[in-house]
Amino acid sequence: MCRWMAWLGQPVLIDELLFKAQHGIVDQSLHARMGAEPTNGDGFGLGWYGVGDGPGIYRSVSPAWGDPNLRELAYHLESPLFMAHVRAAIGSPVQETNCHPFRHGQWLFVHNGYIADFHLLRRDLMLAIDPPLFAQVQGSTDTEVVFHLALTLGLEQDPIGALERTVGLIETAAGGHGITAAVQGSFGVSDGSTLWAVRYASEGPARSLFASADPSAIRHLYPDNERFQRLTDDDRLIVSEPFSDLPGVWHEIPQATAVTVHHGGVLEQRAFRPIATDSVSAPLR
Amino acid sequence: MCRWMAWLGQPVLIDELLFKAQHGIVDQSLHARMGAEPTNGDGFGLGWYGVGDGPGIYRSVSPAWGDPNLRELAYHLESPLFMAHVRAAIGSPVQETNCHPFRHGQWLFVHNGYIADFHLLRRDLMLAIDPPLFAQVQGSTDTEVVFHLALTLGLEQDPIGALERTVGLIETAAGGHGITAAVQGSFGVSDGSTLWAVRYASEGPARSLFASADPSAIRHLYPDNERFQRLTDDDRLIVSEPFSDLPGVWHEIPQATAVTVHHGGVLEQRAFRPIATDSVSAPLR
Amino acid sequence: MCRWMAWLGQPVLIDELLFKAQHGIVDQSLHARMGAEPTNGDGFGLGWYGVGDGPGIYRSVSPAWGDPNLRELAYHLESPLFMAHVRAAIGSPVQETNCHPFRHGQWLFVHNGYIADFHLLRRDLMLAIDPPLFAQVQGSTDTEVVFHLALTLGLEQDPIGALERTVGLIETAAGGHGITAAVQGSFGVSDGSTLWAVRYASEGPARSLFASADPSAIRHLYPDNERFQRLTDDDRLIVSEPFSDLPGVWHEIPQATAVTVHHGGVLEQRAFRPIATDSVSAPLR
Amino acid sequence: MCRWMAWLGQPVLIDELLFKAQHGIVDQSLHARMGAEPTNGDGFGLGWYGVGDGPGIYRSVSPAWGDPNLRELAYHLESPLFMAHVRAAIGSPVQETNCHPFRHGQWLFVHNGYIADFHLLRRDLMLAIDPPLFAQVQGSTDTEVVFHLALTLGLEQDPIGALERTVGLIETAAGGHGITAAVQGSFGVSDGSTLWAVRYASEGPARSLFASADPSAIRHLYPDNERFQRLTDDDRLIVSEPFSDLPGVWHEIPQATAVTVHHGGVLEQRAFRPIATDSVSAPLR
Repeated sequence: MCRWMAWLGQPVLIDELLFKAQHGIVDQSLHARMGAEPTNGDGFGLGWYGVGDGPGIYRSVSPAWGDPNLRELAYHLESPLFMAHVRAAIGSPVQETNCHPFRHGQWLFVHNGYIADFHLLRRDLMLAIDPPLFAQVQGSTDTEVVFHLALTLGLEQDPIGALERTVGLIETAAGGHGITAAVQGSFGVSDGSTLWAVRYASEGPARSLFASADPSAIRHLYPDNERFQRLTDDDRLIVSEPFSDLPGVWHEIPQATAVTVHHGGVLEQRAFRPIATDSVSAPLR
Repeated sequence: MCRWMAWLGQPVLIDELLFKAQHGIVDQSLHARMGAEPTNGDGFGLGWYGVGDGPGIYRSVSPAWGDPNLRELAYHLESPLFMAHVRAAIGSPVQETNCHPFRHGQWLFVHNGYIADFHLLRRDLMLAIDPPLFAQVQGSTDTEVVFHLALTLGLEQDPIGALERTVGLIETAAGGHGITAAVQGSFGVSDGSTLWAVRYASEGPARSLFASADPSAIRHLYPDNERFQRLTDDDRLIVSEPFSDLPGVWHEIPQATAVTVHHGGVLEQRAFRPIATDSVSAPLR
Repeated sequence: MCRWMAWLGQPVLIDELLFKAQHGIVDQSLHARMGAEPTNGDGFGLGWYGVGDGPGIYRSVSPAWGDPNLRELAYHLESPLFMAHVRAAIGSPVQETNCHPFRHGQWLFVHNGYIADFHLLRRDLMLAIDPPLFAQVQGSTDTEVVFHLALTLGLEQDPIGALERTVGLIETAAGGHGITAAVQGSFGVSDGSTLWAVRYASEGPARSLFASADPSAIRHLYPDNERFQRLTDDDRLIVSEPFSDLPGVWHEIPQATAVTVHHGGVLEQRAFRPIATDSVSAPLR
Repeated sequence: MCRWMAWLGQPVLIDELLFKAQHGIVDQSLHARMGAEPTNGDGFGLGWYGVGDGPGIYRSVSPAWGDPNLRELAYHLESPLFMAHVRAAIGSPVQETNCHPFRHGQWLFVHNGYIADFHLLRRDLMLAIDPPLFAQVQGSTDTEVVFHLALTLGLEQDPIGALERTVGLIETAAGGHGITAAVQGSFGVSDGSTLWAVRYASEGPARSLFASADPSAIRHLYPDNERFQRLTDDDRLIVSEPFSDLPGVWHEIPQATAVTVHHGGVLEQRAFRPIATDSVSAPLR
């Protein structure tokens, strides 16, 4: 299990959301409430858009709750769009190349969940990666392979469509090994302008995923909350689990759903339907 | 909060107790049951007596549950006497020099608990350390200072007495700052032959501490348990919290009590009574 | 031995000086030319003024040449005033709390060199630290003690004067132990507006220290160098060793000299003369 | 570039060879003399046979010269057969899964050198790995791929033959990409009883490799050297570069040569001739 969050809105000091939020992502690294396990202490990552070309990434194998550098960076970096991820490793080593977000050019990618029996599928799935991208896979997580499959299948042109094809391809490959509940989780993607998120499981309930409500509604609900009063209509959060229990602030994203957040706080929602691919050896390209 | 364990008995593969025990110390790093917090993920340490002069130490800032090197060492080191400690930092940095056990010559030292308002007392307490030992303090924990005070006050001649004088000195120094509940915790000490453990709090209940029962009683209680049948009369464990819920296997060490474990499994118990020292600037030496 | 650099001038992407400079500080971590040792691989630190209150710090125990996070940060942080330091440990542990720069409020501090026989002096020097500052010493380097002595002796009011008193105090304390060549090195200090640097050794030649020349002179000398043409009259560098062999670009700072760099590129130079303090136990405050 | 060493002989405290040898492997991590670069500071690994089943491995991303745990382990582990490796990364991340030795069951594997243009060949070579072994590749080095190819091609039955087939396969695959000088380096292999070493380059001189001379000859040459007098006829070292300049102690292993060291100090030498494999997609199995 892992936890992630993404912010798209006015430029904020990252600290505001990582450390100042009551039950923010750093608190979730130690005390997650909605996952299979409360502890997400096997490294973390922060990807942000700001100064310099493309997104910056800070990844560490330390638990997020105890890393002094994360606290420093959060307090001295401002960004209108960033993603943070805290990791609970399930099998693959605790190393920076296994920490999310993963990056390709302008793109960032995070995941909470897993590919079932990944050790059985890893070879087939890596063969389906566009060969020139193969050597870019530096770690050993399922997520990095999913990301490179999605890049292979058109992520940069159509993020949701590419993820539907990717999940379809994985389910097909898994089926060939007799694995049914192949894909579990939530995915987050950004190119620096737009934010996409998917909640999906091949079988049973998918990992939790929430979007912050319309800021004007939040301000109206909690007129005395100073932090909320600073929210503008541009501001949206997507999170694995809410930062607070306040009613009306968080909307659960339904199962098998994809969400798109545009600048200006506009949030679109549609069904997420995997597109089966009948052959791993001939991926759509 | 932290958790620790100590073994004195027949030489065993360390793995047997660190990883194979149902709720061993590594499991406690992720899921402690009896502490203020379930997570002890801010580094760990292992000190063992075996090949080579004096005790060896392996310390790491990684959580114990995810460190592949700890697993390797545990599986390839055999020892008749070792201590392991998993840390939950409360204020001081996560760094190897803050990980227990601390060492001086043949001696190892671990602690679960704290010195209250240590930042107020640190200078006074460090001044009370025997000057030639001062430069050996490499980290910034309260425990390392306690250890060097105890060395100053005769740990190598009379471990329990030195700890009584040390706790008395700390309580006196704390009193001067208006701090009442100065010392909290359990302490473990060894010189490679004998094992000493103390449970004590200046005020209120002290951190939990348990000793394994007489091995013959354990074997009798659980005749079908293969692991228990391998226990000899030499074998004793001291632990922050039991490795299992089995009745009759673990005896709680009472409040304000010191325990001595000799080779041969002999366990002695006596009251632990801090010896007040009226001046920090003139420690008993 | 260590190496450090400081920039005061127009806001630049830190990458420009850390990685793009031909023989910049990261290259010096692997291939220093002017020090006792070519390798400065025992951790590093970056302190910068920019977004957020006070300076940010990123410190790591990895060698600077191989740390992917440093590369990321350098490429995504812009600052008008920053300091970087690569460390070659001589005795004290490789841990983040021993990495420079050290910080106190708005102040940053770096050092290349050593206090001779520091283990003999550590206690005396720590006793001379203003008691409320004592608990802030988190690591075990001589430099952190020097910094806290300087804070005790007025760094925030008069940086150069405080360093003269600090060095005098150390030399006096060392004399009491029969140590003559007590202080060796170069020091860098900043409050976010001004930059101070000192080159001094109690005996023999001090560690090397250089300032970049007047930018207009540099531009005039190298009219075809694009990077140099971007220099404005505000820009100044202080470095342990030059980033290039180009004549006219770097001026050696003389022995026993203090330099002050103000905004606008103004560089003042004066003699550095330690002020002896006759008693460690009664520091000037 | 990297440096490695292997010991087969009487059980020794690992410290004797890692730290006590004048120019041992830890000194080579900071000051190698025979490689392209003096610094091998991008992690290290130690693999040893001793207590417990199979070899133990300790790997770290710290430079070997500054890792306190390595010093501890070396001083408290005794082994009749061990390998140590210090790494200079050339492209792939500094992470434990990229540190040598690599392990499979009873087998250990180290390498000094590289596969040229590995990013171009990585996919082809990984496809040639026996599919059930594919998921065991945890890092991103060329060496780990070479090891798994050698396992695919019979390492456990015929180590030298399998390496000849592996090198042949790599050279064939490289030829298909127009790469000529594909393989460079020295390789070390052990199963816990025997030690094999290979020195080979597809083009030009291969990385240096030396074997210690017959112990009786060494004792005879240096009758006053206490350490040498402790050598028995069982003892042999294979090293990337000699631990000393003493004449008669080290024999250079010729280019394109494989060496086998049996218990009892018996050293056999034969030509190493890659066996071309015409198709990557149909490896010899």
